[in-house]
Amino acid sequence: MLTGPGRRDTPRRSRLGCRLAGALSGGLTLAACLLMPQPQVHPQSPPPAHPIAIVIHGGAGNISRSTLSPEKEAACRAALREALDAGYRILQQGGASLDAVEAAIAVLEDSPWFNAGKGAVFTSAGTHELDASIMDGATLRAGAVAAVRRVRHPIRLARQVMERTPHVLLVGEGAEALAREAGLELVDPAWFDTPERRAAWEKRRSQAPAPNEPGPADVAAEGKHGTVGAVALDRHGHLAAGTSTGGLSGKRPGRVGDSPLIGAGTYARDATCAVSATGQGEFFIRLAVAHEISARVEHRGLSAAEAAAAVIREVGWLGGEGGVIVLDARGRVATPFNTTGMFRGWRVEGRAPVVRIGPED
Amino acid sequence: MLTGPGRRDTPRRSRLGCRLAGALSGGLTLAACLLMPQPQVHPQSPPPAHPIAIVIHGGAGNISRSTLSPEKEAACRAALREALDAGYRILQQGGASLDAVEAAIAVLEDSPWFNAGKGAVFTSAGTHELDASIMDGATLRAGAVAAVRRVRHPIRLARQVMERTPHVLLVGEGAEALAREAGLELVDPAWFDTPERRAAWEKRRSQAPAPNEPGPADVAAEGKHGTVGAVALDRHGHLAAGTSTGGLSGKRPGRVGDSPLIGAGTYARDATCAVSATGQGEFFIRLAVAHEISARVEHRGLSAAEAAAAVIREVGWLGGEGGVIVLDARGRVATPFNTTGMFRGWRVEGRAPVVRIGPED
Repeated sequence: MLTGPGRRDTPRRSRLGCRLAGALSGGLTLAACLLMPQPQVHPQSPPPAHPIAIVIHGGAGNISRSTLSPEKEAACRAALREALDAGYRILQQGGASLDAVEAAIAVLEDSPWFNAGKGAVFTSAGTHELDASIMDGATLRAGAVAAVRRVRHPIRLARQVMERTPHVLLVGEGAEALAREAGLELVDPAWFDTPERRAAWEKRRSQAPAPNEPGPADVAAEGKHGTVGAVALDRHGHLAAGTSTGGLSGKRPGRVGDSPLIGAGTYARDATCAVSATGQGEFFIRLAVAHEISARVEHRGLSAAEAAAAVIREVGWLGGEGGVIVLDARGRVATPFNTTGMFRGWRVEGRAPVVRIGPED
Repeated sequence: MLTGPGRRDTPRRSRLGCRLAGALSGGLTLAACLLMPQPQVHPQSPPPAHPIAIVIHGGAGNISRSTLSPEKEAACRAALREALDAGYRILQQGGASLDAVEAAIAVLEDSPWFNAGKGAVFTSAGTHELDASIMDGATLRAGAVAAVRRVRHPIRLARQVMERTPHVLLVGEGAEALAREAGLELVDPAWFDTPERRAAWEKRRSQAPAPNEPGPADVAAEGKHGTVGAVALDRHGHLAAGTSTGGLSGKRPGRVGDSPLIGAGTYARDATCAVSATGQGEFFIRLAVAHEISARVEHRGLSAAEAAAAVIREVGWLGGEGGVIVLDARGRVATPFNTTGMFRGWRVEGRAPVVRIGPED
């Protein structure tokens, strides 16, 4: 960001070396570059001043061939690709990272394959309660909603909380009242149903002796959540993050996880990184995962990737499962998780878009 | 904690020097002490292995003689003292810091002089919506409730969320269902009314052109909140923190501030510190204030007092007002705030209890 614009085919390590040096002193750039490992150096091609980038996720879990049919895998990959494209298009046109995050998440909320918006899991009472949050890394403004039941795109309502009120978090009917004022689309609660989620709820209901009281084991066993999220970096160098979820399958009505909590499931700060989390929300709240990653970048000088990997290890030590997507203002991406897989994808300017499920990267 | 037990009259600076040295290497303790400033050294009197301590607050705000009559001041001081005593008694008997925090906050919830439990402010709809949270610094377990309307002691319900469910946060009717299951006292919503709060609501209602839509100015103008909180250190060296509030005066129904959010209004970790916040909650959420203080202790090696003072300065830079109480596992207390006053008190083993309102310490 501190070097000038140019072509985009410079190898990454060399580019970062030049940038780091630029941050220290513009005049020392060349000297510093000479000291860095320089495979395939193209000296005339520094990166764009602010590469644009977006990273998304569709939930971490213990994903295997037995739980993910080829047809479902293809549908999930297609939805992730569609969400990536929707967000990236906005960034390409010079749009704000906040808009890209909102657009990408809205696509995933409409997909029946993820646990957010349509396709949300059922509560123990057979209802849906949706949570979402969004944060602007430039100003630290944020908006969030929890336990809403009729809002088609909870991420858009979170954005409205941020834009139209002095508040950060609205819950329940008070949040839905804002949705009506803002003219957001409201749907019949049955709109969120899918045959797969209904079958899972009915199975759970027939097996559980006390469906209203999930024990700790239920949280631990609930590997795959399908929470969705996005982080983006726009042409102006601003980061944003957002997360949306139907929460824990079979949850007690009123249970709120980490997704709508700024600092737990979502955090963005231009000077550090943008984070969206997925997993067993209670563990992510107790460690304030999203904010902890940002804090380690700020206070320990770690890269976002190093900080995220360390904090996901701590989630595991505490007994929790899940993952995060992180992006910093240089466009560097990391997607650590401690489950067998995480639905995820990213697109960084000048490179091909990527969609992944297993740990193959 | 790394030095042995003994008498308690060692001057603080010398004591800390010895402890720090102990942390580095037991054998170097004496040498390090010789290098530290040592006014009035009594070499045979190190502190107790785990001093017990409790710190409470009853809200930060722009408190002045014009808003605080001598009668009300005396009543507030008496309630703070009663809460301190209730918590300290538990610690003295070898009880857990979690129990001390819960007991102290329950006293303040029953006091009509603070904005928590009885005496909670009115929402724009003329109702009360109560929020609370509690956290165990030894295990990082936590419980919280938001937007409850009939629970006499929201802090006790937060504790029940932690103890009886695998969850951290329950909101609205789902939280109240747990209160019934746990046998907690439910009251008629009118129980929370006080003549002063009703008059403030009626005045606000008659003046505001759109009482359902407070603008940013309302949040900024709302200096005095009266949120209550406590942090404690028990004989076993474990920290705990808790916070309880009626939220923002004239708030939109469903608005949730920082008090019930682990990481924003409440955080506790034995290795760092315990924190409870009060003030304009939205700013505290955006900076994840309670967790940020803990993170600066952990990652920057600051004392809890240094970290808390720095973070409260950042709240001010962002435009927010409020304060925090912090306590570390050595029994060191700090209560920084950027308003004209904060109702607060503390009691550390071997010293007289203190109750303060203005910045006189």
